[in-house]
Amino acid sequence: MVVVMRSGADETDIDKVVKAISEVGGDAFVSRGKNQTIIGLVGDLTQFAEMPLHAFPGVEDVIRVSKPYKLVSMETHPRPSTVWVGDSPIGRETVTLIAGPCAVETEEQTIDACKMAKSAGATILRGGAYKPRTSPYAFQGLGEAGLDILHEVARDLQLPFVTEVVTPADVDTVAAKADMLQVGARNMQNFQLLKEVGMAGKPVLLKRGLTATIDEWIMAAEYIAHTGNLQIVLCERGIRTYEPMTRNTLDVSAVPVAQSLTHLPVIVDPSHSGGKRELVMALIKAGIAVGADGIIVDVHPRPEVALCDGPQALIKDDMLALRETVARFAAASDRQVASAGQQRASGAWGRSATA
Amino acid sequence: MVVVMRSGADETDIDKVVKAISEVGGDAFVSRGKNQTIIGLVGDLTQFAEMPLHAFPGVEDVIRVSKPYKLVSMETHPRPSTVWVGDSPIGRETVTLIAGPCAVETEEQTIDACKMAKSAGATILRGGAYKPRTSPYAFQGLGEAGLDILHEVARDLQLPFVTEVVTPADVDTVAAKADMLQVGARNMQNFQLLKEVGMAGKPVLLKRGLTATIDEWIMAAEYIAHTGNLQIVLCERGIRTYEPMTRNTLDVSAVPVAQSLTHLPVIVDPSHSGGKRELVMALIKAGIAVGADGIIVDVHPRPEVALCDGPQALIKDDMLALRETVARFAAASDRQVASAGQQRASGAWGRSATA
Amino acid sequence: MVVVMRSGADETDIDKVVKAISEVGGDAFVSRGKNQTIIGLVGDLTQFAEMPLHAFPGVEDVIRVSKPYKLVSMETHPRPSTVWVGDSPIGRETVTLIAGPCAVETEEQTIDACKMAKSAGATILRGGAYKPRTSPYAFQGLGEAGLDILHEVARDLQLPFVTEVVTPADVDTVAAKADMLQVGARNMQNFQLLKEVGMAGKPVLLKRGLTATIDEWIMAAEYIAHTGNLQIVLCERGIRTYEPMTRNTLDVSAVPVAQSLTHLPVIVDPSHSGGKRELVMALIKAGIAVGADGIIVDVHPRPEVALCDGPQALIKDDMLALRETVARFAAASDRQVASAGQQRASGAWGRSATA
Amino acid sequence: MVVVMRSGADETDIDKVVKAISEVGGDAFVSRGKNQTIIGLVGDLTQFAEMPLHAFPGVEDVIRVSKPYKLVSMETHPRPSTVWVGDSPIGRETVTLIAGPCAVETEEQTIDACKMAKSAGATILRGGAYKPRTSPYAFQGLGEAGLDILHEVARDLQLPFVTEVVTPADVDTVAAKADMLQVGARNMQNFQLLKEVGMAGKPVLLKRGLTATIDEWIMAAEYIAHTGNLQIVLCERGIRTYEPMTRNTLDVSAVPVAQSLTHLPVIVDPSHSGGKRELVMALIKAGIAVGADGIIVDVHPRPEVALCDGPQALIKDDMLALRETVARFAAASDRQVASAGQQRASGAWGRSATA
Repeated sequence: MVVVMRSGADETDIDKVVKAISEVGGDAFVSRGKNQTIIGLVGDLTQFAEMPLHAFPGVEDVIRVSKPYKLVSMETHPRPSTVWVGDSPIGRETVTLIAGPCAVETEEQTIDACKMAKSAGATILRGGAYKPRTSPYAFQGLGEAGLDILHEVARDLQLPFVTEVVTPADVDTVAAKADMLQVGARNMQNFQLLKEVGMAGKPVLLKRGLTATIDEWIMAAEYIAHTGNLQIVLCERGIRTYEPMTRNTLDVSAVPVAQSLTHLPVIVDPSHSGGKRELVMALIKAGIAVGADGIIVDVHPRPEVALCDGPQALIKDDMLALRETVARFAAASDRQVASAGQQRASGAWGRSATA
Repeated sequence: MVVVMRSGADETDIDKVVKAISEVGGDAFVSRGKNQTIIGLVGDLTQFAEMPLHAFPGVEDVIRVSKPYKLVSMETHPRPSTVWVGDSPIGRETVTLIAGPCAVETEEQTIDACKMAKSAGATILRGGAYKPRTSPYAFQGLGEAGLDILHEVARDLQLPFVTEVVTPADVDTVAAKADMLQVGARNMQNFQLLKEVGMAGKPVLLKRGLTATIDEWIMAAEYIAHTGNLQIVLCERGIRTYEPMTRNTLDVSAVPVAQSLTHLPVIVDPSHSGGKRELVMALIKAGIAVGADGIIVDVHPRPEVALCDGPQALIKDDMLALRETVARFAAASDRQVASAGQQRASGAWGRSATA
Repeated sequence: MVVVMRSGADETDIDKVVKAISEVGGDAFVSRGKNQTIIGLVGDLTQFAEMPLHAFPGVEDVIRVSKPYKLVSMETHPRPSTVWVGDSPIGRETVTLIAGPCAVETEEQTIDACKMAKSAGATILRGGAYKPRTSPYAFQGLGEAGLDILHEVARDLQLPFVTEVVTPADVDTVAAKADMLQVGARNMQNFQLLKEVGMAGKPVLLKRGLTATIDEWIMAAEYIAHTGNLQIVLCERGIRTYEPMTRNTLDVSAVPVAQSLTHLPVIVDPSHSGGKRELVMALIKAGIAVGADGIIVDVHPRPEVALCDGPQALIKDDMLALRETVARFAAASDRQVASAGQQRASGAWGRSATA
Repeated sequence: MVVVMRSGADETDIDKVVKAISEVGGDAFVSRGKNQTIIGLVGDLTQFAEMPLHAFPGVEDVIRVSKPYKLVSMETHPRPSTVWVGDSPIGRETVTLIAGPCAVETEEQTIDACKMAKSAGATILRGGAYKPRTSPYAFQGLGEAGLDILHEVARDLQLPFVTEVVTPADVDTVAAKADMLQVGARNMQNFQLLKEVGMAGKPVLLKRGLTATIDEWIMAAEYIAHTGNLQIVLCERGIRTYEPMTRNTLDVSAVPVAQSLTHLPVIVDPSHSGGKRELVMALIKAGIAVGADGIIVDVHPRPEVALCDGPQALIKDDMLALRETVARFAAASDRQVASAGQQRASGAWGRSATA
């Protein structure tokens, strides 16, 4: 950490900072410039971060130069993790396809969508039973009934599934049936939810908030990790920018950046960022090419009657292209498409690893 | 609502839209241009909003031209509301000062900060007992003990207080003691929390999310209103932009815009956007001048030992200037500074109005 | 175009709009809703766009539903263009590699960098002689001397080159030697420069402004096209967002979106958005995968002594991987890597086409 | 400046940085932490800024802790400047009103608009003869004919005027008639224009770019100052954000921030940010309240026939309120409304000061 003193700061001001740091057991190195003095802090950064150094007299700025996360950091765990969802891995060496309906609307639609997903090579199913919606008048999901439909369909197709949980009170219900819990973009800093989801012991899919920095996103993962659960997968799903022509701006750079900072797998959701079906396939390619460890995508048998986000869903006719696209770009990246029932490497995170 | 057809759309595509609209009892007016056809929809917009028109063949875009909110809308309730917090009003004709410590740290600090607030003319106290923090390693607030301190200090000073609630499970506990419940920026789209806070029956202070559009912010208020509770105060607190020199960019334009769209009071939080004490006073002036119905501000007896957001807190020496500034700019705006125990206008929202 | 009337607008207000439109020869279709009336305008949109409809009484909003560009629009020219730079094509069916030094510093460095570029398969060289720099104290480029170096090196390597021109007065000098003129991000709305660059008759590489919308970017191309020069290549180079961890956010979605709106080729510059060499290769892959018609990239023989943007330059050791990466991802996308001296398709834009 | 080394950097890497710094006469202070080493640089920061330290082996980040501007910096010239435009001052102790038509359309409209401006207390007139427009098909201004109209109207009303210059070739023509040259938001980093405008010797109004950081904006002023011309006034006019409900987001915080960093006056343009007349008056109040040294505002006698930006222009009925509003909020801020022909303080910048 670096403390930058104002140009008018005097020795007393500098001494106060040095003294405060040494009181908590740290070292402070003073670099005196002609116009400005800077103080390098060495020691327990978590402790320094809690000190109100900004409010000390003569202090202009406090710059953090090391990362605030620990458990999910690449520095403390240099080998990339593989997270297992049922028998399906998500990790650096494979490209995992997760697919299914945006929202569970009916049993029939869910069966059709999940069969489509499986036909395209998905090894994990997705589907929303609890939907966070901007309007109280919009379809809010089927809730527990939707969860039951998903559970049954996934069992029949012999694939695990991931579904969103939107409030702490629902965590137990959802964790009882789902193989992976999703924390949505709007809830990325719903800290109580992060804690309870972490404690449920299931793998967690953590979407990046609509305007979360990469640091904040990883800190949200640290909240989950702090409960002892390291089965976390990060998901870039587009950020809010000034550009109106796309729903969100898919920040593909975030994938390699996050992969360099944490050992967690990082996947991409091209459906919610593109917002239009025409864009989704192009963004799937970009996501795999940039190095994402997987793709999560909406499919729908009849998007023109979808209750939620129809325009962005891939349709039946896209499934063959989807399978082929994932295969081609995974191959171009020297990676395998993940398959269900893959051999688990020793030491991997995941359900059986924690058992 | 307007449906814009692609230039290649044919009559069958147009008919499908017209038919779907008339099936739900709406009217569709077709304007055929040389290159492009647009269809104006008239009827129940909530119903149209639920239809996946975007996914219809030949549809290029669907543009909503009327606002999605109802209960909080200026159209359905053209007279601005006054929300009463205890005996303190917040409304268009007054400027209300809300002040207190960012976080409750100790009883002594809380007493000192609240006395400072009262001396500056605050008629509502503020203080954080439950703190949402980006890092799991940061001070998370005193929780219920902090709530008790606030409750006692407020009673002694004979002022109501507002405090944040961060998760649905805490709503009852907080509502039992606080006079107003705050939903923070990070939780603006924590829909379950919005519902439970609404049902608690206390006035609600709803902060704008860090990157919420004005429409999304008002829709979040609609969630609360939907529970039957219209005692809602909106709070602009700065949005996330590319500018690094301020913590957030205080969007003063949002105040008159929101005031023209809803009947709810709109206040400004200059502390969290400025991020630095030097800016806070300038932003208080801007907030009142632009028409805010109130100001909520952090004060701290000793910011250099604050556990949270010390650099932005106003200090004892600022209190006289704060009182005078609020008075001057309220006067320049032809408004009164709100005082506790003010006569309640008939028909106002608020605790007694709903009793 | 759609005019949305305020809920309080009366028949007189509506009539004024209808009359004004019919006076310029257009048709106005009125859709009267319960709360709100909307008016669809049909006719010459350029003319409507010039009318101050927003300022008419009773008008709440004016929404443009068709695109404001003509000459560069996919609608007026549905077949994608190929732009020829010397004998090197840029177009939808190939992937073109453009590479070279960010800035021309010395003859030796330029030779080395351009040889590196050629060895990686570049068919067009790049290099900056005139550098727009944020600080007046930063290296501003060698100017005409740099241009001469580039010209000579390119001639020796028998490849065309593109270089930036920063002010109208330099256009003739640069156009006399360069094979393609670049308009940089900061000058995307320097309209006089756009006109003069257009009139120079050489192909133009138009970078997207740091916070230009896709529409504004294409409108800037329309300025060039308006001079009669349609040899325009669009270049996405990252937009400004709130994320601090990357220099800019590469907006890969802009590639397919722009390709669907214009017939112009669209390429990607991963160097300036990533800002760090580690990211550049990942973004090259993402750019090709998303469908870019080419990649423009900085290379430097000794980045640790570069006068400009050293950290983002690819180095000698990267050249083999660069060549292979472009080949692999072009193949995965069913496209060929462009080669110099390729057979020119009839009807293509380009130097000989205009001769 | 601070160099942050990667956690894996070794002594050789550290030595290279230290050596490079001492070679240019600087000092490097090394702070060795458990995980990370940081190096504080002391000396000529301009020189360090030119070094490609980012590309040195083992370097993770280079953080600039002091400001890159000199001539316009508050540190080198601690007393705020007053810039004189004719006999009208712009400076910290007064509030200056600049008003007039957005674009000069006809002589009659210009006379009417400028009379309106004068009646509201404007001491400097504004008007656009050369208009930068997003579309080549939009009204581009009357050019030199417009300049002549403005010149004549201003002479008749005995007030100075400011007008925009959009390209270097026009600087002499514009400077021969205008009392102050405006550099628009789109041209804020048109460096050649900045230089030529600076050399024209007239006061310059420098608008903040649509997405310029405050640092970049001040650096653009440094370009002008570098020509020896310190008669520069900064103008905040709204930045681009994700919020669609306002044209731009007026960043009022930028005013006190820029005033703390430079000695230059800082004014606010509420017309172009609000985009709607209803918002303009509220933003004028906010601008003065936050401490702006002046306001520049569009007025139009008949906005419903305006060729440019009609909806945002204040009209005749607003003039009395405008005069009163400026007076009230200036008074609330303990400042005077600037008047033409005011006594010039000794040592001020401005036309006569440089004579």
